[in-house]
Amino acid sequence: MEMNTTQHTSHQYNQELDDARSKLMTMGGLVETQVTNAIKALLERDSDLGEKVAFSDYEINTLEVQIDEQCAEIIARRQPAASDLRLLITIIKVITDLERIGDEAEKIGRYAVEVSESATSGELHKSLRHLGDHVKNMLHDTLDALARLDVKLAMQVVSDDQNVDAEFDAISRQLFTRMLEDSRNIKDSLNVTWCARSLERVGDHCKNICEYVVYLVKGKDVRHTNLDKMREEVLGTNG
Amino acid sequence: MEMNTTQHTSHQYNQELDDARSKLMTMGGLVETQVTNAIKALLERDSDLGEKVAFSDYEINTLEVQIDEQCAEIIARRQPAASDLRLLITIIKVITDLERIGDEAEKIGRYAVEVSESATSGELHKSLRHLGDHVKNMLHDTLDALARLDVKLAMQVVSDDQNVDAEFDAISRQLFTRMLEDSRNIKDSLNVTWCARSLERVGDHCKNICEYVVYLVKGKDVRHTNLDKMREEVLGTNG
Repeated sequence: MEMNTTQHTSHQYNQELDDARSKLMTMGGLVETQVTNAIKALLERDSDLGEKVAFSDYEINTLEVQIDEQCAEIIARRQPAASDLRLLITIIKVITDLERIGDEAEKIGRYAVEVSESATSGELHKSLRHLGDHVKNMLHDTLDALARLDVKLAMQVVSDDQNVDAEFDAISRQLFTRMLEDSRNIKDSLNVTWCARSLERVGDHCKNICEYVVYLVKGKDVRHTNLDKMREEVLGTNG
Repeated sequence: MEMNTTQHTSHQYNQELDDARSKLMTMGGLVETQVTNAIKALLERDSDLGEKVAFSDYEINTLEVQIDEQCAEIIARRQPAASDLRLLITIIKVITDLERIGDEAEKIGRYAVEVSESATSGELHKSLRHLGDHVKNMLHDTLDALARLDVKLAMQVVSDDQNVDAEFDAISRQLFTRMLEDSRNIKDSLNVTWCARSLERVGDHCKNICEYVVYLVKGKDVRHTNLDKMREEVLGTNG
């Protein structure tokens, strides 16, 4: 009887953990859709889609609050073992970054509405598309690394963030030149700059999430470590 | 004997909690200094101070990692009661926002070095000083609300964030006009725009922290709630 109760409890407990994990992935999926739509709205100057993105943020926010409370409750009632506890604390941290990625998507959606009337030069459009694709892939890999607790993939995302930063800098320079050439471009260029900045921030949040994944799996805190040292510590290699 | 052990343990446990709390406030103090210096460097075009800020971020980062591990360890070993658990989870969340305020200060420090050579118009300088003072006060109140778990003060900060956003918008418009007037102003204006954006983000993080304080004390999640509803729920008033 006692054992049955324990089994029953442990079964329920596992279900609770699974449920938290699966809500986390649902939230990740919603955030991914928002980012994809935001980028599409921006590149295709689709103000309807931009507006849709700007007003769909509440679903993500609701999930964040739910998951947050669910994890805290599991910790309080179940007094989980060290490894489960680390998972739950990681989830609590990850959802904060996911929610803020949602915020950035919302901002891009709003700017997409603003810039929908203006034409962009081919070169700038190409750079923006490139950055958008890059960040979308990065987010996809982040969610993959999170679902499979894949440290190698997580480390790739962490080091890839440098490339996103470099692309953002290149776009900033393009926009700067565009403003210098014709002052009528300034307003639109500023709006596009904010969008590029938001994309770059999505990259930052992906990096944060992947650092949490590494910490969860390896138990090593790789935040604020330089990349070479991180590779050496986590993967046991020098390159 | 048993009782003594318990008392001893409980005394140690309380010390551990106090230690985490006090490290948190130390971290808050460091972040406040960084923000104050960053704003000073920007306004007084002091590139030496800007550089100092840009390179002092590591202390904050180190503390973040330490506090994070300390809280997780207390949760794992002590299986704290619900209220202590909520405190520890709150600390884990707050330090993330504090660390990101540190990042924004670092960015302002770096931009301060870039713009130190150029002159700013009196009007813009006044607006920037105003926004800087505003954000500094907001951070100070945030740390106060956190130290004293003062819900009323926390709510003030949450609603004050709207004013910071409005000030940022006003500065953006000023900078936009400045760019239109003379294209030689564009580069410098963009740098100042990034600084203003960083200040606005410090305000966002203060708001986040204060929302955590309200949640900790009231057990009500006020994130993603509109202000009137929040006041009604937390303070039991309609205005």
